[in-house]
Amino acid sequence: MTITFAGRKIVIIGLGLIGGSIARALKHAQPHTRIFAVGRNAAVLDQAMIDGSIDGWSDSALELCVDADLIVLAMPVLAIEENMHELSRVLTSSTVVTDVASVKGAVVQAAIKVFGSVPPNFVPGHPIAGSEQSGYVASKADLYHSRKVILTPLAHTNPQAVQMVTDLWSITGAEVLNMSVEHHDEVLAATSHLPHLLAFALVDTLSQQGTREEIFRYAAGGFRDFTRIASSDPVMWRDIFATNADATVRILDEYMTDLQRLRQLLLQRDSSELYKIFKRANASRDVFLAFSNNQGSKQ
Amino acid sequence: MTITFAGRKIVIIGLGLIGGSIARALKHAQPHTRIFAVGRNAAVLDQAMIDGSIDGWSDSALELCVDADLIVLAMPVLAIEENMHELSRVLTSSTVVTDVASVKGAVVQAAIKVFGSVPPNFVPGHPIAGSEQSGYVASKADLYHSRKVILTPLAHTNPQAVQMVTDLWSITGAEVLNMSVEHHDEVLAATSHLPHLLAFALVDTLSQQGTREEIFRYAAGGFRDFTRIASSDPVMWRDIFATNADATVRILDEYMTDLQRLRQLLLQRDSSELYKIFKRANASRDVFLAFSNNQGSKQ
Repeated sequence: MTITFAGRKIVIIGLGLIGGSIARALKHAQPHTRIFAVGRNAAVLDQAMIDGSIDGWSDSALELCVDADLIVLAMPVLAIEENMHELSRVLTSSTVVTDVASVKGAVVQAAIKVFGSVPPNFVPGHPIAGSEQSGYVASKADLYHSRKVILTPLAHTNPQAVQMVTDLWSITGAEVLNMSVEHHDEVLAATSHLPHLLAFALVDTLSQQGTREEIFRYAAGGFRDFTRIASSDPVMWRDIFATNADATVRILDEYMTDLQRLRQLLLQRDSSELYKIFKRANASRDVFLAFSNNQGSKQ
Repeated sequence: MTITFAGRKIVIIGLGLIGGSIARALKHAQPHTRIFAVGRNAAVLDQAMIDGSIDGWSDSALELCVDADLIVLAMPVLAIEENMHELSRVLTSSTVVTDVASVKGAVVQAAIKVFGSVPPNFVPGHPIAGSEQSGYVASKADLYHSRKVILTPLAHTNPQAVQMVTDLWSITGAEVLNMSVEHHDEVLAATSHLPHLLAFALVDTLSQQGTREEIFRYAAGGFRDFTRIASSDPVMWRDIFATNADATVRILDEYMTDLQRLRQLLLQRDSSELYKIFKRANASRDVFLAFSNNQGSKQ
């Protein structure tokens, strides 16, 4: 690899699963990268120092960010505006900023609110990686290996800034792709936000059954997977649904129409039509695997 | 273990994932058990002979079942009646019969149709184990290890027959529990049939999007898990939904009510109520894990 971050100063604001894994991946690939973290949990940040994931930390972005080459905002969507506001006091025109939030429209809106317009050196980004676990404790150096990262630069975004953020993710082992802000939020509503909503709803429905204890005791494969999906960080998901509600509701409505149709087929015991749908879903898995076979397996 | 099946003759009709795994588990634990399979795919059954999973096979149940100690019906729900019909010509009063189907009401109805009433030596059963994979090729000796098996004997079922089927599953490493037919079908509608229906529906909805290719290409964790669940055997699931439609629709209706409520919260951007639900779902995962921590992990 010819790309090098050695000697550069990277500041990660928010050292959780995503931020912590960026730090670990960079240090693993390029030990001479200077990585600093901004956070409030001293125990976690001291542990990251011991692990060698970071070179230093502070509870304030101001002192660390003033001479940073690249700042990564690694926090839930709704916390970004406040952090941008703090950054706006120290940000120089040469510092590149990116984020990792799951909804890009809201992040662009926050930037406009804080800076008046989206700064040319701000590159919105989103790694399609994660886990139902959260926090630095769950972070790992290979989280992004062979996973996709979507960047959503605007028309006036500085190409050199896009290159630097692309390099950052390439070093972690990810494949970097570009997409428009709107398209990103629509695709993610379908592939990630809706599935999580369905899982949260199912766990909620079944938790309120009179036979709840038995339902949990005899849970078969299907429900087991749903409880895992639904155990994802509630703050992160609250923020995602609050900021990508419209796109999520659009695809949810299509889904509910399909579900009503399946309900009718069940009531009519229409085995042959059900079989066709299940057969098609089964075939879709092969299509999915063909598209994602470089993407590693979800832990 | 004091239970022994050595010298006993077990006939498994249908050597797929479930039947094949029973054969492998028994041979692994008690190599002297005599295991025969009934099936039509000579290549698969010859392979099972080579593997040492079975001692012989036939494409007809008649010749193998006449002196069997225990017969296991390991086929999709709707194929059971026809197989029982064939069995009825050779079954002696000393042979114990069990099945592995996911819906117990339909199996009991099939037995009444074929035999006039449920034979005292027939013990309906259902292993809560499986995989999105199917066929003998996916079978393995430890599939039932630490998994639950639910038996649904009737009031007049022979206790010695129940004991023999309980012993069978204990030898495979499973934990055996008893439950009524109706209760089994209700609990499974919630924990297994509904989750699978939701997954089939989601894969179907997203497969029909204009952005289908991108949806598959950028699929995040949530959708990936749904495609896996939805890749389960379409014949098996067609039969499950055809025979457990009423219980599935009852829990589906409760689910859709909850989903409508979540939809409203999204449209209202009611972050605090969404957070409460997600937090509760997150906590349910811990309850689930506490109940199922002896159950091994789903592959």
